[in-house]
Amino acid sequence: MSLFRNLSKSYFFTTKQLFKPPNSTNPSHLFPSLTLLSRFSTSTPGSTAPVRYAALGPTKPHEKPRVVVLGTGWAGCRFMKGLDSNIYDIVCVSPRNHMVFTPLLASTCVGTLEFRSVAEPVARIQPTISKEPGSFFFLANCTGINADKHEVQCETVTEGTQTLDPWKFTISYDKLVIALGAQPTTFGIHGVYEHAIFLREVYHAQEIRRKLLLNLMMSDVPGISEEEKKRLLHCVVVGGGPTGVEFSGELSDFIMRDVRQRYAHVKDYIHVTLIEANEILSSFDDRLRHYATNQLTKSGVRLVRGIVKDVQEKKIILNDGTEVPYGLLVWSTGVGPSPFIHSLDLPKSPGGRIGIDEWLRVPSVQDIFSIGDCSGFVESTGKPTLPALAQVAERQGKYLAALLNKVGEANGGRANSMKDIDLGNQFVYKHLGSMATVGSYKALVDLRQNKDAKGLSLAGFLSWFVWRSAYLTRVISWRNRFYVAINWATTFVFGRDISRI
Amino acid sequence: MSLFRNLSKSYFFTTKQLFKPPNSTNPSHLFPSLTLLSRFSTSTPGSTAPVRYAALGPTKPHEKPRVVVLGTGWAGCRFMKGLDSNIYDIVCVSPRNHMVFTPLLASTCVGTLEFRSVAEPVARIQPTISKEPGSFFFLANCTGINADKHEVQCETVTEGTQTLDPWKFTISYDKLVIALGAQPTTFGIHGVYEHAIFLREVYHAQEIRRKLLLNLMMSDVPGISEEEKKRLLHCVVVGGGPTGVEFSGELSDFIMRDVRQRYAHVKDYIHVTLIEANEILSSFDDRLRHYATNQLTKSGVRLVRGIVKDVQEKKIILNDGTEVPYGLLVWSTGVGPSPFIHSLDLPKSPGGRIGIDEWLRVPSVQDIFSIGDCSGFVESTGKPTLPALAQVAERQGKYLAALLNKVGEANGGRANSMKDIDLGNQFVYKHLGSMATVGSYKALVDLRQNKDAKGLSLAGFLSWFVWRSAYLTRVISWRNRFYVAINWATTFVFGRDISRI
Repeated sequence: MSLFRNLSKSYFFTTKQLFKPPNSTNPSHLFPSLTLLSRFSTSTPGSTAPVRYAALGPTKPHEKPRVVVLGTGWAGCRFMKGLDSNIYDIVCVSPRNHMVFTPLLASTCVGTLEFRSVAEPVARIQPTISKEPGSFFFLANCTGINADKHEVQCETVTEGTQTLDPWKFTISYDKLVIALGAQPTTFGIHGVYEHAIFLREVYHAQEIRRKLLLNLMMSDVPGISEEEKKRLLHCVVVGGGPTGVEFSGELSDFIMRDVRQRYAHVKDYIHVTLIEANEILSSFDDRLRHYATNQLTKSGVRLVRGIVKDVQEKKIILNDGTEVPYGLLVWSTGVGPSPFIHSLDLPKSPGGRIGIDEWLRVPSVQDIFSIGDCSGFVESTGKPTLPALAQVAERQGKYLAALLNKVGEANGGRANSMKDIDLGNQFVYKHLGSMATVGSYKALVDLRQNKDAKGLSLAGFLSWFVWRSAYLTRVISWRNRFYVAINWATTFVFGRDISRI
Repeated sequence: MSLFRNLSKSYFFTTKQLFKPPNSTNPSHLFPSLTLLSRFSTSTPGSTAPVRYAALGPTKPHEKPRVVVLGTGWAGCRFMKGLDSNIYDIVCVSPRNHMVFTPLLASTCVGTLEFRSVAEPVARIQPTISKEPGSFFFLANCTGINADKHEVQCETVTEGTQTLDPWKFTISYDKLVIALGAQPTTFGIHGVYEHAIFLREVYHAQEIRRKLLLNLMMSDVPGISEEEKKRLLHCVVVGGGPTGVEFSGELSDFIMRDVRQRYAHVKDYIHVTLIEANEILSSFDDRLRHYATNQLTKSGVRLVRGIVKDVQEKKIILNDGTEVPYGLLVWSTGVGPSPFIHSLDLPKSPGGRIGIDEWLRVPSVQDIFSIGDCSGFVESTGKPTLPALAQVAERQGKYLAALLNKVGEANGGRANSMKDIDLGNQFVYKHLGSMATVGSYKALVDLRQNKDAKGLSLAGFLSWFVWRSAYLTRVISWRNRFYVAINWATTFVFGRDISRI
């Protein structure tokens, strides 16, 4: 018993005595799961019985009901922003403490924008999570959901050798919102994970940037052969959706404007190839697609119709046997559900996403909702699966926050207390249109509600201006809006930054 | 012989035929050192005799003389900026393609400044290196110097598994400028390299930032004991020179202003301790030192007089046996010559730096100069070793550029052709004063020329203003000045950024 008693004694310095040599070794980090703060403990204070997990136990009657949010993407963050913190305590679990403004990520790879300009800390989006005593942000991954016990299992993230071992804990919820997003699809093609870089997170953009600048510099070293130089400076993008097209456009802008000026030795060697199995920008109107094709070709992007069969360290093999040597390979062929989503014992939508009903609830369980790319309507709703777009996620987050605020006001915030509450209108998605930039201050704006509808579609400089303005007003905080505007202005005046940091 | 002939054939795509399947495997990356471009080759074009290294051979009579600069710190960059590219071709070798504005590095760790605001690409400082056909920047380390052959050996940097194997090459020089800087001293204390973080490069600041934010978030996880929480949030700085003091000041500003607001759960646990064996800021005037001590103490930094004996994963041991648990350990106890400098077969100054004479030449060899922290006057000059300060390096770079411009104009630019040229005035260092910020918008400015001289010394807000202005006008480009000013303004308005990217 003395072992546990010891834990409550602080061997750390007091204000008077700065450092007190410990009388015994500190066992706290040897037996972490035994150490429970009474505030977090499910057992009564003073109890020393060992438990498996540290826990944030079920909410008590005098506490606010607790909403647990998994994920900090568009859906999760928009939801937290809208949720009323006077009604609920908010606990967010994510391996990332910020939201990424994904549509601008491509611009950060070539230095048009700074990484930090496209990221917004969760604590700024919903300040409650780091201020209120019952609200938290945990830098952790969710490893399991127990719908019956209203509990999620989590594990802290670890990186490098200097950090803690993963720390396991559970969180009880009154309402659970699963907004874990999706992961890139590779169609089972060998070598994609090993050699290609995705473009979903800030660290992907950082990796692309470092590799691009490394290749630019390596290609200038004495004795590098012409072939090797061409290979190093061949940037291949697989996937002709908006991300692939925007990245190709940014890259060709960077080459046309900055590389030609500042890497004069290699300017004739650098090339961008965009490989797509079908049409590029297939969701856009024919005229816009044609415009995009012309524009990209004009800025030197080679468009190739092809299917990738195999990815090797220095080349990819297409279905027809063509070998394409590359120095940088960016993969953006769409997204699909992650293995964790697959593993969950919850209803699924066609395509394997978490199944939801018209109010974004997961049917057959209590108090679980799902929004964003990880969710899709169950078949019985008769509704189609919505595209994996930021605007869908954002609209769902906004809707669900309003719904839960209403439920909370009607005293339905606690676990298992929502049954008799009128949920009001169903979630209806109205597509506001699509935008994509193609480089050279040109963009496409397609304001039609769907592929077959009539409506406004624009292409060119005006669209580019609309695109920039739209992004500026949608970047979440004033701080980020300010930074993005400043970044765009300095890139315009001084060119892109090429420090490899 | 057919193997070598093959190398000149391009199997890569032409404009008409996008991808041509190779008829044979590409041997260029298997035998890199055999592949020589005639432009770089020391052998005659068409020769296929294998050589050990690819090379940038001696300059020909119709070419400009070549100055090779090793290093991209204050000294090397100031030198390149001043060197006349009409007279010389400039070749720079460094593992870093940018200069770091080191005095502002501490501010980047806590988000006051962005990383990119304190870095300036070499190609912006001296655009010649990426534009002129005979000037280059090589992302590489120098591995050897052959003073007799007027040649340096280099090896490209590698990182991760996806990059090339190190690529070896040699560069012939007409003049060589060694500006390789120094490395942090650890006094042989065990565990420093493993567990402490230095503060010399942008990636150090990034590591400190990531660890600080990780610890802030880990300390909030359910079940973490009070002791572990205190440990995680204990930031220890070893070394009370300007870097250590400025970092402690920035950290306490971050805690006072940002952590208290945005990490309310942990605000009473986070502490900064500064450990110094002697006085802090020993080069400053007594009054300023006293002021700094008071100011730091007032902002919550604990100053401890002590000598570190051992560094372990989670605690350091002082000489008197005291154990100090820490979550973040920053080491800034000064700098000394690197093993590479030690290994060079060149004259040395007392203390092991590369020995130089009054004109910054390395005596006893031809055409080699050394500037910055890696160099010191040889004993015979009767001059003391100058402190390892940015202003010394910067002044030496400026002086040497003027000297070599003069030599070049007098037709002494080629190897072994400088003997009869009058070098003019010797290098004389005049100390312009020292500055250090101590947080809370307070700084010290000591304008005395040395420790015993009389002169102006200031402390407080006015000094802080002088400090910021001085830094703003010394950051090298307008782009960086602009970014630093914008960063300071946004930090003032919006607070520091806490995204962990």
